[in-house]
Amino acid sequence: MNIRAATINDLPAIIHLIADDFLGQKRETITDPISEDYVKAFREIDADANNELIVAELDGDIVGTFQLTYTPSLSFHGGKRSTIESVRVDEKFRGRGIGEEMMIWAMQRAKGKGCVSMQLTSHNDRKDAHRFYEKLGFKRSHTGMKIRFDKAP
Amino acid sequence: MNIRAATINDLPAIIHLIADDFLGQKRETITDPISEDYVKAFREIDADANNELIVAELDGDIVGTFQLTYTPSLSFHGGKRSTIESVRVDEKFRGRGIGEEMMIWAMQRAKGKGCVSMQLTSHNDRKDAHRFYEKLGFKRSHTGMKIRFDKAP
Repeated sequence: MNIRAATINDLPAIIHLIADDFLGQKRETITDPISEDYVKAFREIDADANNELIVAELDGDIVGTFQLTYTPSLSFHGGKRSTIESVRVDEKFRGRGIGEEMMIWAMQRAKGKGCVSMQLTSHNDRKDAHRFYEKLGFKRSHTGMKIRFDKAP
Repeated sequence: MNIRAATINDLPAIIHLIADDFLGQKRETITDPISEDYVKAFREIDADANNELIVAELDGDIVGTFQLTYTPSLSFHGGKRSTIESVRVDEKFRGRGIGEEMMIWAMQRAKGKGCVSMQLTSHNDRKDAHRFYEKLGFKRSHTGMKIRFDKAP
């Protein structure tokens, strides 16, 4: 498996992975070609040295994706944090250790960028995901809270 | 109250606020002058257009601080996310609505940067903080998980 930075050519496959999910299917839209909104977001991620969009490629297929963010921070003696978001593995390729390989790659990458930790939030309904991350050494230490501005009071 | 971007001159006061906390006191060190690690982290935050360190100033005193991160993202149709971290209000100034004013300012700022949402993680032991954020409209929808690389298996 080849884990690498995504290019614009990978974008349709990535959007399919993000949409193919019980939460994602409610909030993404697949068109051909894909919406300009996604292209614009890809360009912004690509231009930001502290963000990386990554894909896992197997025999020419994009089978997984995630985004890494590196955040300079004062706490923990000025230790840089990493955040991983939008972790997805193609349903057809689950159970083969692809997710685990992606996560180990991600942690190595973040260490290489000088980060002292990795954090993530996972929807409370994703119980399997929580167990998956715990097996990798993540602790359920925090409560993740969100507000959508379009739904804010 | 004046809420504004922090300058290097605010850094000792910010580090004091971050350290003056049941979790922070275990992981920060206050020296005079403050450690170069903090100065380096401040410079990195300051140089990153997608990170802002903010202070709340009252009669010349720094009474609160937080950090905002703006993250370009594919999900939610390419909607940019904001994250707020290291939110602190000086213990002597609590109960006056300073935290609420800071959070409302932060959400307006993030909207102005084109963000569609704000997210945060709060340690499971910070029960008062969870209630505070819920009153502002945040939902406890996610499980926040972390791994410290120096403690990883």
